Formats: sequence, C-alpha cells, structure tokens
Amino acid sequence: MANPVLVEVTRGDLVESRHRGMIVAVDGDGKVVFSAGDIDAVVFPRSAVKAMQGLPLVESGAADAYRFGAKELALACSSHSGEPEHAALAGAMLAAAGRDGTALECGAHWSFEQSVLIGQARGLERPSALHNNCSGKHAGFVCTACHSGREVAGYVRYEHPVQAEIRGVMESLTGAALASDACGIDGCSIPTYAVPLKSLAHGFARMATGAGLEPGRAKASRRLIEACMAEPFYVAGTKRACTRLMQIAPGRIFAKTGAEGVFCAAIPERGIAIALKCEDGTTRAAESMVAAALARFFTGEPEVHAALTAMANRSMHNWNGMHVGDIRVTAVLG
Amino acid sequence: MANPVLVEVTRGDLVESRHRGMIVAVDGDGKVVFSAGDIDAVVFPRSAVKAMQGLPLVESGAADAYRFGAKELALACSSHSGEPEHAALAGAMLAAAGRDGTALECGAHWSFEQSVLIGQARGLERPSALHNNCSGKHAGFVCTACHSGREVAGYVRYEHPVQAEIRGVMESLTGAALASDACGIDGCSIPTYAVPLKSLAHGFARMATGAGLEPGRAKASRRLIEACMAEPFYVAGTKRACTRLMQIAPGRIFAKTGAEGVFCAAIPERGIAIALKCEDGTTRAAESMVAAALARFFTGEPEVHAALTAMANRSMHNWNGMHVGDIRVTAVLG
Repeated sequence: MANPVLVEVTRGDLVESRHRGMIVAVDGDGKVVFSAGDIDAVVFPRSAVKAMQGLPLVESGAADAYRFGAKELALACSSHSGEPEHAALAGAMLAAAGRDGTALECGAHWSFEQSVLIGQARGLERPSALHNNCSGKHAGFVCTACHSGREVAGYVRYEHPVQAEIRGVMESLTGAALASDACGIDGCSIPTYAVPLKSLAHGFARMATGAGLEPGRAKASRRLIEACMAEPFYVAGTKRACTRLMQIAPGRIFAKTGAEGVFCAAIPERGIAIALKCEDGTTRAAESMVAAALARFFTGEPEVHAALTAMANRSMHNWNGMHVGDIRVTAVLG
Repeated sequence: MANPVLVEVTRGDLVESRHRGMIVAVDGDGKVVFSAGDIDAVVFPRSAVKAMQGLPLVESGAADAYRFGAKELALACSSHSGEPEHAALAGAMLAAAGRDGTALECGAHWSFEQSVLIGQARGLERPSALHNNCSGKHAGFVCTACHSGREVAGYVRYEHPVQAEIRGVMESLTGAALASDACGIDGCSIPTYAVPLKSLAHGFARMATGAGLEPGRAKASRRLIEACMAEPFYVAGTKRACTRLMQIAPGRIFAKTGAEGVFCAAIPERGIAIALKCEDGTTRAAESMVAAALARFFTGEPEVHAALTAMANRSMHNWNGMHVGDIRVTAVLG
C-alpha cells in the first residue's frame, strides 16, 4: 500500500504537488505513540544519526582530553552550512588533536545555502574540506582516532575501527542488525546503514531518555543531545530548519535532518523521539512533517505550538513578494 | 489510486527514494500513444508552456518587426540560467522595442545553477530582472505589447491584453477551458492555468504537427519549436536538461521543463508530444521521465536511444567521486 500524502504544496486554490512519507513517534521502550505509513521499511538515516555517530568521540574520552565544550560537540553532530564560524571551529577541533583540514576525508563542496555560497564565492577561490557540511563530524572522527592512538588515514572506511565502533553504537541504540548488504556510502564517504524507521526513532528515544542504556552511554548520549540543543547554530546554521526548531523551545527540542528527506527529533522531557522519511527525498516536506509532529506534543503551550505549526504550514512568495501558494501538512499530521 | 512510481533513487543495493508521477504521449489528433498514472488530473504547466505563451509575439508581427531570429525566439520560450549571454540577449530584445530591463515585471533572482551563481556573485552586486530565468519570455511580452501599441505596464496581470491573448492561445491549443478558479500566479508573476495533463500534451502535439490549427498559427508554432531546437542553449543553458535533450538529436527533439516537476516534449517528425508531472515536484525525476519517454521513440537509432537512456538512468557520485547510487526509471517507463 502506498504511503500516505503527508504534505501538500498548493498554488492558487489547487494542490500542485504532493509528498508522501512515513513517520513514527516512540517512547524510550519503543512503544509507538503515533505513526503513519510503512514504519517498518528500512531507510538510510544519512546525516540524521550524526549524534549517534558522535558517541565514540565522547565515550573514548577524546572530547574531554581535547577540552571540547557544547559548541564542538554540536558541530560533531552537525550538517552545517559552511559559514565561517563552522569552518573555523572544525579547524580548531582538528588543531586540538595536532591535525588540520588535510586530515579530512569528506571531500569539499560549496555551501548548499545560497547566501553562504555567495559569500564563499566572493571570499574563496574554492571551498576546502573544512567547508563540507560534514566537517565537524569528520573532525570528531579524526579526534577519536588520534586520542585512541589509531591510524587516522582511512577513517571513513567500513573496516576502520572508528566506523566499526559506530556500527556497534548504532546496533545497540536502534536494536537493528546493520547488515553489510544494507550498507551504502554516504555523501561524505562513510558507510550509512539502512534500518527500519521505527528502530531509528527508538534509537533516539533511548539517547534522549537513557532507557535501556548502560550509564556511561546514557550520560554520553545526554551530553551530545544537550550540546546540540544548547548550540543549535553549530548543528546547522543561519535560517536552517534544525537550528530554528531547536531555537523554538531552547533546551527542550532536539532535531537533526538527513539527506533524502529524513528527519529525526526528540523531546527529552516527554521521553519521546520521532523519525520520518519523505518517500521522494524532498527536504521542504520533511521539514513540514517534523515540525507538525513536534507540535503534537506542545498543544498545552500555545507559543511553542504556534511556532512549530507555522514551520509546518508556510506561505510561498514569488520574486515580487506575491503570495503564490502554501506548503501545508495534510489531516494525517495536522 | 496512487500514481505509479516512475523513478527510483538507489544507494548501495537499496532503493532510497521514490518518485511517482503521471505521463502521457499523444499524437496530433489527441490519441494516446502511451500513458501512466492519472493523465486527466489538472496540473499547472508552469514554464513548460513558454512556447505557447510566445505565440502572440510571432502572430502579432512583433518578432518580424523587431527582426528577431531563432536565438531571440528561443529565449522568449526559455527558462534560462541567467548566463551572461542570456541576460544580454534579453536586454537586446527590449532595446529593439525601445525599452530596457526596467520594463520587466518578473522580479530578480540569483541563478539556480551553482556555477553560474558563483560567477554572478563575483561579478555583480546583485542580479537584475534581466537575470531572471523568465526574462526572455517577459521581454517577448514587452515587445508584443509595444508593437501592438498597448500599455506595457501591468503586462503580467490577468486583465492585460497580452495575458488575455495567451489565454486564448492556450485554450485553442489544449482544448481545455482555462477556468479562473484554476488560475495560479507563477514565480514570475504572470497567471498560470491548470489544465489536464493529456490536454497539455495535445497542445504541444498540435504545435509540433499543425493538426487542427489554422495556417497562421500552425506556421508560428512551427517557427517557435524550430527556433528552440536550433538554439537549445538559449532555451535553458550550460548543462541544463532541456538544452542537452535538444542537443542529442538536433532539430528533431523539442523539450521544455516547468517548475514543480513538469516536462513537455515533442518529436515533430513522429507527430507526437509528451507531457508529464512528477507528483512531488522534483526536477531530477522529471528529467529522467522525459528522457525515458523520448527514448521509446528512438529504438531504431541506437546512438540517440543510448544518449536518452543515459540521461534517464544516471549515476550519482559523492564529493570524493565515489559512485554511491543511481537515478533510474522503473519498468513502467523503462
């Protein structure tokens, strides 16, 4: 059966485009709070699991050894826009371990954000790996490898101890076996493992609540989640959805996007986490879906609820500023 | 019933994202040659109908009066990338009518193409209306109004004679009534009218074949289609899908994209036209769909067929150049 339409894009009085998807909210025990679509389907979580991938940085003691605070941990969990502050902090993290941007194996790209790209074009001959949206995560990998006395080169490879540790972390958090035939290569060259959407949500619910985790992992998980909530600019950047979602209720909402329409989020005080995938991989729809899903948990707080609902349902304007249509969630999520 | 999945995006051995859509190919009499999905659904054609919107420029005599050749007519039918040649030619078209870029009512925006945007960022304080992807079409509107002795200001409005003429042209070509309650505002501020997908294809089949058109309109239609096929760079730009599709079989394929996953195409020598809409509005999928649909008509020509099939099914590489997945059409189109 087809996944339900969760987001519609209108123009005039008509629906112009439709986005289907699957979404699930679970508690720390993995109990489904609400869902729509095929939540047992396996999805590549892509960058949505960077907070999980950051656990070895904390658990190995590297983060403490290099005196990383909330900003550095947030950047290790980020898909940032390549703004000057992001690139500089990634460089500083590498410097703490005696390395520099040449240690990064993520490749280089111009910012995906138009306003940042314009600044880069005017100030740079070309972007470096420090500007890659994954440079903070990769700096974390390099620091983890350095602190543990491991070879840094090749840290992106499936066989490298850092990636093996991440596999273990992700299996324990999601409860899903990470089969090698469900492994793809991510944009930044590290492995990405397809897991059932429900398991992905459960992994974040465990991180947010500590349910079922041994104390060290529970503490490290909480530290990463809190770092992201404390420094949302370093998780994404100016005007980005992750940043704005976490700014709506400071210290109370965790949110992280992944490529191809994935979004994960958690509300630690409610003990729940959300995972979703827009079937067609479109970011605009995934952003509406996560905002609408989060809003369901804030019906008792009109300001927070209104801000989330305004992100879920928003107007589109053309080059002359005329209102031409809307992006809105359907009744399934509304 | 849900529209079928026409394009899949893979990563590793798995399908990561899916694009549904509707597509139809018809002949000049409107007979369906093949179809998939709900082809009676109304869709906003957006920029895919710029060749139809260009007819008043030719039929009014303005194009001849201003000595416009294939490049100017192609630009009038274009969604260009804002490359220097595009902006300059739009300016020259306006100058022929004694106007300049200040007459344009389309608004301004930076190029959607990264490499063009980087050049613009380095060379311009900000883009002008001449860089708007619709500036050629709007220059055509301004020239049509000037040549006909009409007020230019307000030419984007529903009530303006130029837009009224376009409504008449589109109704006669598509055979669909353009109801005011199926009218939206396009990105460039002119009206866009939702029509059944099959009617849209029929309109292009009529333009490509002249079937059922009075001689003047048939000749003007053919002139616009041939101008686009002769000057594909001026219909889109460097590396753009419309340009590449028309370069694959010079003078034999017409192709024009529209926002939100619309694509229209014609093969005049076969007497057919194609219209499609990706349900979720995604360009990458619409491009695969149109290439695969066109390929069906070139099975007897291995080189053309291979080039179109290679556009329909293409590899994706990450920032390090590693092959990470593919965009491919499903068996419905393959």
